[in-house]
Amino acid sequence: MSQKGKNEWAVVLVSGGLDSCVTAAIADLDYRLAFLHLNYGQRTEERELRAFHEIADYYRVEKRLVASVAYLKEIGGSSLTDEAIPVSLADLDNPNIPTSYIPFRNAHLLSVAVSWGEVLGACKIFIGVVEEDSSGYPDCREEFYRAFNRVIALGTRPETRIEILTPLIRMTKAEIVRKGAELQAPLGLTWSCYQGNERACGRCDSCALRLRGFARAGLPDPILYEG
Amino acid sequence: MSQKGKNEWAVVLVSGGLDSCVTAAIADLDYRLAFLHLNYGQRTEERELRAFHEIADYYRVEKRLVASVAYLKEIGGSSLTDEAIPVSLADLDNPNIPTSYIPFRNAHLLSVAVSWGEVLGACKIFIGVVEEDSSGYPDCREEFYRAFNRVIALGTRPETRIEILTPLIRMTKAEIVRKGAELQAPLGLTWSCYQGNERACGRCDSCALRLRGFARAGLPDPILYEG
Repeated sequence: MSQKGKNEWAVVLVSGGLDSCVTAAIADLDYRLAFLHLNYGQRTEERELRAFHEIADYYRVEKRLVASVAYLKEIGGSSLTDEAIPVSLADLDNPNIPTSYIPFRNAHLLSVAVSWGEVLGACKIFIGVVEEDSSGYPDCREEFYRAFNRVIALGTRPETRIEILTPLIRMTKAEIVRKGAELQAPLGLTWSCYQGNERACGRCDSCALRLRGFARAGLPDPILYEG
Repeated sequence: MSQKGKNEWAVVLVSGGLDSCVTAAIADLDYRLAFLHLNYGQRTEERELRAFHEIADYYRVEKRLVASVAYLKEIGGSSLTDEAIPVSLADLDNPNIPTSYIPFRNAHLLSVAVSWGEVLGACKIFIGVVEEDSSGYPDCREEFYRAFNRVIALGTRPETRIEILTPLIRMTKAEIVRKGAELQAPLGLTWSCYQGNERACGRCDSCALRLRGFARAGLPDPILYEG
């Protein structure tokens, strides 16, 4: 967990959720960590930020950037940022894009990571997106990241070498839970729920995916749930 | 200049400079205009914002979004946002990237435009970047926009059809000035200078390019310069 003895910087996008925590654990194996968190007026902004700092403390990460992309709330279009749009109840078999989709959100995460990474001299950006076991967001697909890597290569200085890595993208939630346990990631510090309460709701898409992942991995979820 | 009688929305990135003003004039020929401006802690933030609103008033644009990407100032790395880095004096034959380059800035502009455009149901994003006669910024090249269009297609809802248009990209500054004059764009309302004073400095890269463009077009620049 020490950041010493590693030479190359990686920017890790850390929402504070399960997936980003396991992604940080993977990045920590080989890179010096710089943690990036975005506030975009999501309902759970404060709770996520607490998880972000607790995970950063665990990995002794000194370089932290919390960037506000509050304009995403002003733009709206998602139940995560617009109080007028209800959070969908979990329906993991529904092929439609859920109401929690924030238009083109991951492009904002990546753009901030690239700008910061270029100034830091980082060579990698880690993002814990999951394609197969996700909620069907279009910006969680592997080909989106391949295309974004091309944009990075074309849109930064010639000497900049930044590549996005998505180590979880082909994993199921159960595999992510197991990988986190194997790497001693601090899963008890994470927050995944789309509702903003003290305990996780257990009913939104994100809670449902998480609970199913722990159940399938045969491991207990260390966080507390309502009811 | 009326926004009536046009059906399709276009988001136009309007910095308040000459190029974005002429781009708006081109977009106005065929689309209903939504104007987007980004504040990123640049030295000339207030002056640019005044130009943005004056140009929007001229085109009777009701949909306006001013988004703060203040984290770009925190990230630093550019003389436009970091007071410790001096603004390069103009050297239009220098092949190096000038100190005013903001790491990956245009990706942020485009990401906000795409998110807003997806909620508006827009089909086009106009950005007034110029490849041939520019300062050598890597994110002003045509292939960067082609690659970004692929990211948009992959990272938005299946029914979303948003494409970036760069109508000035192959023009010289003189051609842009002539196009603006032809379309009666309000060039006297624009602000291009990288310094933040009441009159343009006439000496920074941006002023030098602008002045050379008007001179080569054989037209007077309607704004005031120092000295």
